Amino acid sequence: MTAPDNRVAPQALAFDVFGTVVDWRTGIARESAAFLAKIGRPDVPAAGFADAWRFRYIGVMRAFRESGRAFATLDVLHREMLEETLHAEGVDPAALDDALLADWNRAWHRLDPWPDAVAGLTRLKARFPIVTLTNGNIALMLAMARHGALPWDALLGAEITRAYKPDPQAYLGTAAVLGIAPSDLCLVAAHHSDLAAARACGLMTAYVQRPLEYGGRQAPDAEARQEWDWAADSLTSLADLLDCR
Amino acid sequence: MTAPDNRVAPQALAFDVFGTVVDWRTGIARESAAFLAKIGRPDVPAAGFADAWRFRYIGVMRAFRESGRAFATLDVLHREMLEETLHAEGVDPAALDDALLADWNRAWHRLDPWPDAVAGLTRLKARFPIVTLTNGNIALMLAMARHGALPWDALLGAEITRAYKPDPQAYLGTAAVLGIAPSDLCLVAAHHSDLAAARACGLMTAYVQRPLEYGGRQAPDAEARQEWDWAADSLTSLADLLDCR
Repeated sequence: MTAPDNRVAPQALAFDVFGTVVDWRTGIARESAAFLAKIGRPDVPAAGFADAWRFRYIGVMRAFRESGRAFATLDVLHREMLEETLHAEGVDPAALDDALLADWNRAWHRLDPWPDAVAGLTRLKARFPIVTLTNGNIALMLAMARHGALPWDALLGAEITRAYKPDPQAYLGTAAVLGIAPSDLCLVAAHHSDLAAARACGLMTAYVQRPLEYGGRQAPDAEARQEWDWAADSLTSLADLLDCR
Repeated sequence: MTAPDNRVAPQALAFDVFGTVVDWRTGIARESAAFLAKIGRPDVPAAGFADAWRFRYIGVMRAFRESGRAFATLDVLHREMLEETLHAEGVDPAALDDALLADWNRAWHRLDPWPDAVAGLTRLKARFPIVTLTNGNIALMLAMARHGALPWDALLGAEITRAYKPDPQAYLGTAAVLGIAPSDLCLVAAHHSDLAAARACGLMTAYVQRPLEYGGRQAPDAEARQEWDWAADSLTSLADLLDCR
């Protein structure tokens, strides 16, 4: 872990959410197991289904800007990805109940925080404004925050900036909405690729190690590691580093 | 006060902020008194200065859509109005220090909640998502929420919808962002004109009486009163009406 130091403190902390604050894989696997059983496909491995859904997400986000597609919320995109993931398992989503698919898709609204998240965010909030900088839309983040008691000061990210990370506009637009310079904003994330894109926009960077995000396997962006401004193994450790008692 | 009843409950509560949740007049008058003294004009009555600033705001908001002007945040518009209000008092703002004017303008970020606001919002939040539906921009609302410990679930309003109340898009766009029908959203406001515009968009309406908003004088939209879905004399009373213990 990086030791406390005398760097200039950020004026606000902006958090990646999926993987950094909440455990998407456990939640999506648990709920998908139930839904797969309901549609008569308990043979499909639920954790693999969660991974397949997530990997589609990563691909869509990386290509969104170049695709030229008009902005659509992550709830809409997640639903499309769910249907594609089902297709890949030989299931025709058009044959399924729409309400069931809508509820399955809302599993992303019901993800549980990592065990240290609420305590860490609460301590960090005492010193810094804490906002999301997420590709999730506002309704999704609002439901998730109420589900997990996440004490956000504001829900910012793709729906506000109309740009998905790693598009630079997602980072620069969030600083602009906060009324601060990009160099006064610190992204907190478990993903090297996200931090690298933020750093390229001039943001400060804080890495939070989440070894269980992919069930103990290596993250897909492990090779993008750099020396980040801060590095911690939990949000409570980050609160220690940033002198938040 | 309207008694509890068996109407369908809203799925979310959206709050007007200036006047409904915070006391803009006392805060702006107190800070303006200090700034007027600093610029050598202690003779200008501070409460009148606050009223003049606020009345410019009301006029600009009502005419914004028709003006055809591109969206600008309320921080930007408040600053223009401050300079106009100074001009009307015979002060040339160009002769003043820019940092002083910026700080004066941020008086809107530091408004205190009405005495019942935090307790009422906290109780309402236990049952309903509570969001702002305000003409104030996100940075302004974030600073105000941290100043007054307002427990918002999300900061919504003009900066998200790119439309200022009473433009219908401000109300309809907020419901859309929340992913609910306008008829499932309830506006909570101390202003009949705001509630009337919300009702015209299909929202539910809850009136909160704030007799001290204009220092005890009649509000400028007193003639727009209707029978609202709920009516209370504080946010704690509204929590009673909506069965929030």
